[in-house]
Amino acid sequence: MMKSDSWFIEVFDGGKVGGLSFQVDEVLFQGRSPYQHIEVVQNSFLGKVMLLDGLVMLTEKDEFYYHDMLVHVPMACVEDPENVLVVGGGDGGSVREMLKHPSVRRVVLCEIDGMVIEAARRFFPSVSSCLDDSRVEVVVADGIEYVSGLRNEFDCICIDSTDPVGPAAGLFSTEFYTHVRDALTEKGAMSAQSESPAWSMEEVTSIVRNMKNAFGSVHPYIFPIPCYPSGLWSCAMCFRRDRNPARDFDRQRAALLAKACKYYNADIHTSCFALPNFFRQAL
Amino acid sequence: MMKSDSWFIEVFDGGKVGGLSFQVDEVLFQGRSPYQHIEVVQNSFLGKVMLLDGLVMLTEKDEFYYHDMLVHVPMACVEDPENVLVVGGGDGGSVREMLKHPSVRRVVLCEIDGMVIEAARRFFPSVSSCLDDSRVEVVVADGIEYVSGLRNEFDCICIDSTDPVGPAAGLFSTEFYTHVRDALTEKGAMSAQSESPAWSMEEVTSIVRNMKNAFGSVHPYIFPIPCYPSGLWSCAMCFRRDRNPARDFDRQRAALLAKACKYYNADIHTSCFALPNFFRQAL
Repeated sequence: MMKSDSWFIEVFDGGKVGGLSFQVDEVLFQGRSPYQHIEVVQNSFLGKVMLLDGLVMLTEKDEFYYHDMLVHVPMACVEDPENVLVVGGGDGGSVREMLKHPSVRRVVLCEIDGMVIEAARRFFPSVSSCLDDSRVEVVVADGIEYVSGLRNEFDCICIDSTDPVGPAAGLFSTEFYTHVRDALTEKGAMSAQSESPAWSMEEVTSIVRNMKNAFGSVHPYIFPIPCYPSGLWSCAMCFRRDRNPARDFDRQRAALLAKACKYYNADIHTSCFALPNFFRQAL
Repeated sequence: MMKSDSWFIEVFDGGKVGGLSFQVDEVLFQGRSPYQHIEVVQNSFLGKVMLLDGLVMLTEKDEFYYHDMLVHVPMACVEDPENVLVVGGGDGGSVREMLKHPSVRRVVLCEIDGMVIEAARRFFPSVSSCLDDSRVEVVVADGIEYVSGLRNEFDCICIDSTDPVGPAAGLFSTEFYTHVRDALTEKGAMSAQSESPAWSMEEVTSIVRNMKNAFGSVHPYIFPIPCYPSGLWSCAMCFRRDRNPARDFDRQRAALLAKACKYYNADIHTSCFALPNFFRQAL
């Protein structure tokens, strides 16, 4: 049993079990934006940790799992992606990964909360420094408004959002996914974080259901992420028309990316679509 | 921030970060065996939880990830396994999974700590009830002594141990793995839990190194387990001679098992051998 004022526990929905817990060595930043409470704290094992409304957004130690898998899985399924978009993801990690694809000419980051971007720039340079790349446009705006009305604009769109409560709730709706579909080029792909199959299966299935209302081809996939509740997370990727992302992707590019990534490689790409029985049955 | 007398945090090695944390609704059992401190506690989200020396051994909610993956991956690689052995695993979960393979005639459980078996029988019937099956022999003894001297005895041996400290340390040594190799039949396979690649990569590589000293063919694999530190865990399976377990396994049996398992299926079997780059590089 451990109890001490300096320990943080991310209390999971329901309040009976914790997500990540750690000793807070130092509080580096606390701020309240119009959207949420933002904190940056230091832990000697995890590095710097960003908390949004008391939930772990990213840690320096673990952010690569999430950013690798949200971005490279859909990007490797698109032939020569040029124009790409991140909705949310104000820390810059998804943008950084998109820039590893040689064909990319323009990355738009659309984040609603400018204070997240500022905190990332100040405290997480290894994650955010890509935001100064000449190919990157940073737009501080509501992703729902930004995407609606776009037609055939982006080759890949990654929805890098917080949980489906508060400011991000609209980013999980059928209506939003429909706008994302229309904003994609014909060859394009979307990915979105879709919560924990281990501890939030109802949320996962609800997200996938909404995606299926908008897209003809929806493919959930899984990967570990130690700093999120349960450590088992999912994303889902969508195409307008039927395709098999586990098989139809650019293996040569995946092999190249593996040299620049801690997690993603071609075998991981194929394997992440193998779902446990409890996940298959829930879908 | 959460602090309350009723919260348990599994303090991870070094004391800076936590594994599983949860609110203890009730303490059901506390005992001290010659080997370790044993507790069984209740949490409304996880079900009953067994703690050994303050570390989470199993939870009712999550035990299937671990038992599925420790047992079915090696078992499906062995043609018609008949005589099989679990070293450790006094809760009975690994024995329960072995009995799902129709060819099995005899399962030996060799657990050093009889109090673990008693606690499992009393508080975890869904895990331990298989121990009353007529095909099962329960031996309360030191696994190292039990295995040494055996020749061509078992078609599959699963090392279901606690961490490589305290009573289980010897179960990770080259000497022990050599005895296990000799105790296997020619067609046989061994698996062992091999710690967290996310948070204990040095331990993982040290275990794999010791296995390679004893076996000609060593294959680490990964899977999620929410109740262990970081949520990302590894096992490794070993054969005497070179084989490819991701490809050479009984797909028909795997498909049958999928109907009786929450996690394991044939796609999971192949996919679990796809390792992240950081794991590949460390090996």
